[in-house]
Amino acid sequence: RINGERLWDSLMEMAKIGPGVAGGNNRQTLTDADAEGRALFQSWCEAAGCTMGLDQMGNMFARREGTDPDALPVYVGSHLDTQPTGGKYDGVLGVLGGLEILRTLNDTGIKTKHPIVVTNWTNEEGTRFAPAMLSSGVFAGIHDQDWAYGREDAEGKTFGDELQRIGWRGDEEVGARKMHAFFELHIEQGPILEAEKKDIGVVTHGQGLSWTQVTITGKDSHTGSTPMPMRRNAGLGMARVLEKVEEIALSHAPHAVGAAGHIDVYPNSRNVIPGKAVFTVDFRSPDLSVIEDMEAQLRVEAQAICDGMGLEVAFEKVGGFDPVAFDEGCVAAVRNAAERLGYSHMNLISGAGHDACWINRVAPTAMVMCPCVDGLSHNEAEEISPEWAEAGANVLFHAVVETAEI
Amino acid sequence: RINGERLWDSLMEMAKIGPGVAGGNNRQTLTDADAEGRALFQSWCEAAGCTMGLDQMGNMFARREGTDPDALPVYVGSHLDTQPTGGKYDGVLGVLGGLEILRTLNDTGIKTKHPIVVTNWTNEEGTRFAPAMLSSGVFAGIHDQDWAYGREDAEGKTFGDELQRIGWRGDEEVGARKMHAFFELHIEQGPILEAEKKDIGVVTHGQGLSWTQVTITGKDSHTGSTPMPMRRNAGLGMARVLEKVEEIALSHAPHAVGAAGHIDVYPNSRNVIPGKAVFTVDFRSPDLSVIEDMEAQLRVEAQAICDGMGLEVAFEKVGGFDPVAFDEGCVAAVRNAAERLGYSHMNLISGAGHDACWINRVAPTAMVMCPCVDGLSHNEAEEISPEWAEAGANVLFHAVVETAEI
Ligand SMILES: NC(=O)NCCC(=O)O
Ligand SMILES: NC(=O)NCCC(=O)O
Repeated sequence: RINGERLWDSLMEMAKIGPGVAGGNNRQTLTDADAEGRALFQSWCEAAGCTMGLDQMGNMFARREGTDPDALPVYVGSHLDTQPTGGKYDGVLGVLGGLEILRTLNDTGIKTKHPIVVTNWTNEEGTRFAPAMLSSGVFAGIHDQDWAYGREDAEGKTFGDELQRIGWRGDEEVGARKMHAFFELHIEQGPILEAEKKDIGVVTHGQGLSWTQVTITGKDSHTGSTPMPMRRNAGLGMARVLEKVEEIALSHAPHAVGAAGHIDVYPNSRNVIPGKAVFTVDFRSPDLSVIEDMEAQLRVEAQAICDGMGLEVAFEKVGGFDPVAFDEGCVAAVRNAAERLGYSHMNLISGAGHDACWINRVAPTAMVMCPCVDGLSHNEAEEISPEWAEAGANVLFHAVVETAEI
Repeated sequence: RINGERLWDSLMEMAKIGPGVAGGNNRQTLTDADAEGRALFQSWCEAAGCTMGLDQMGNMFARREGTDPDALPVYVGSHLDTQPTGGKYDGVLGVLGGLEILRTLNDTGIKTKHPIVVTNWTNEEGTRFAPAMLSSGVFAGIHDQDWAYGREDAEGKTFGDELQRIGWRGDEEVGARKMHAFFELHIEQGPILEAEKKDIGVVTHGQGLSWTQVTITGKDSHTGSTPMPMRRNAGLGMARVLEKVEEIALSHAPHAVGAAGHIDVYPNSRNVIPGKAVFTVDFRSPDLSVIEDMEAQLRVEAQAICDGMGLEVAFEKVGGFDPVAFDEGCVAAVRNAAERLGYSHMNLISGAGHDACWINRVAPTAMVMCPCVDGLSHNEAEEISPEWAEAGANVLFHAVVETAEI
């Protein structure tokens, strides 16, 4: 069994880097805080006797050698970046849970046949640079690396420049590594495990996502002296589309969700009717046809709303991934581990996207989930108990070591 | 008659300071560009033989002496600050039109009994620091000066600190000056004069305004893994309130308008359901009871919407002024001037707020308006013709000089 106290201490130590404003974290990707978090992780890995690899997307690979020089490594990990007002566990638990496996193997002197590599994938959150899971996506051959380098944040800074700036761009070719398997431990970020009183979620599937950025263009003009009939209010058009997003998602219930988290109006002045509104609609479902249907409905409904208001509308797909079915063998390894350790468990469909969803395209992959309080995530108040973290890391440990063979 | 070409040249010269991105201006109050614009205006005033006064709100007063040492000055002016994506004429025409009066009096060697003082009022636009017409409001005793100093921009910088920083905080007590009368020339910012083919608007009234800042609080959580029934989406609550704002304004047509120009959601991340939405509702009408009615309806409707969605809502009045009736004598001076000069004219109710609305509380006041293309303002494409500017400045000249007595 892993050392739960040591794991928890490391989580708390990492959480000191890029503190939030309400007890959580703001360690957004490719910021100075991200660089600091990476350096801390590297120092821990080196102390555990690992060598660190770094690829051209800034993905980090801490390797513990195996006994068979020909055996492909088992990979395990997640991400260290956070939302702007994020929690201390989303992603971090999966990386430090991986590190805890290595520390436990060292403590017990166990040697595995396959090497074990702990990863930190760059820009999983996708807040600063859309889309989410950017670098595991490049690794899996989904995205072109130059395209990824060109992604811009709200200030127009590019991913490539910022990666260079913080000093974490490596030389290694992205995606050149071959994996025996990949495992990711993550908090559920939803309410099911807690409600069902289960220690462990055995993730069999991940729901798919579509991010459509909508730009509505009207005409900015004076809020006082522009008569109502002459207005072309892009903000009002946006409000009507947001209502439709809710309607569309609800009409596909229960296996669909939808919302807009990113909303900007221009010029954003109290006495100027918005001439432009830009927002991103996030639709998800475990069923690809439902996602496609919601996205198509959004375009039709938004076009109709805008046509009726003298507004123009444009759509850009800024992110998306198809629903995922994880590898049956890896999923069974997770389930067996939970069983063997005596943890209560259930099958889960991940509501969120994860690096594992992309890596599943290039290697047998599975995920372990642990509960989080009130299902709350992407919030500074995100919370888990040390016992939940320990149970998740124990299951991860057993699944990984079984796969890596002693 | 004034020199239309010189006036136009000065307008174009001032427009070079704080250029916008689309041919207009971004010379927001208390920015470095504002300081530069002030310095240019001061140099022109000094070249015209004026002395410059500066009060503790940064209001500027360029004085041309009169022949009667006991006569109170006639004041004339407007503001040099602009919207973030503002035009070249909103405010500027009134200040430089005032300067053109002094230049014309110098050219012709005319001496007036009353001194004439040209003013630049600080922070008329109210974009960076709410409310609008902040410094004429302090001058007229509407706002407390310390309260005004404490107003914060979106970055948390205060009005007082920024005024000090740009070096335009004077020593003069605000509002100590007594005025014989005040005149303001402004572009209409609405479509009526152009539609009616009139050269001049004789402004008899100004409509009143209410700015209510609405803060809706839900819970930020994951857009993927939070089930629809568990969401407390502040952005969706906002969308529903924005629709009500439109309904409320339309139900009070034709003498009411309403919109929200300022809209922010938090944390504004594509995969986080907004936990907070902050926006400012701008309602206006020439009838005070209509404004009060709309504002009350907004509070009731927004409360009901939020109660029904598990959201909290709070309201803060961040700006407001009552409808204004300008001084009959001053209004007649404007109308007589237009008549005498042979310009077509009509009475107008100003749709926008102006410094004149506050100064009217402490001195006999009136306004002259000229048309603007398509009624468009608070937009970089705001446009007027040199002839319109010249006609407006000629009427201003005659009204001011008649009131200042030769
Ligand atoms: N796990 C997680 O929050 N990933 C971010 C990508 C997503 O929005 O699902
Ligand atoms: N004239 C003008 O645009 N003033 C700004 C205050 C207002 O919103 O009416």
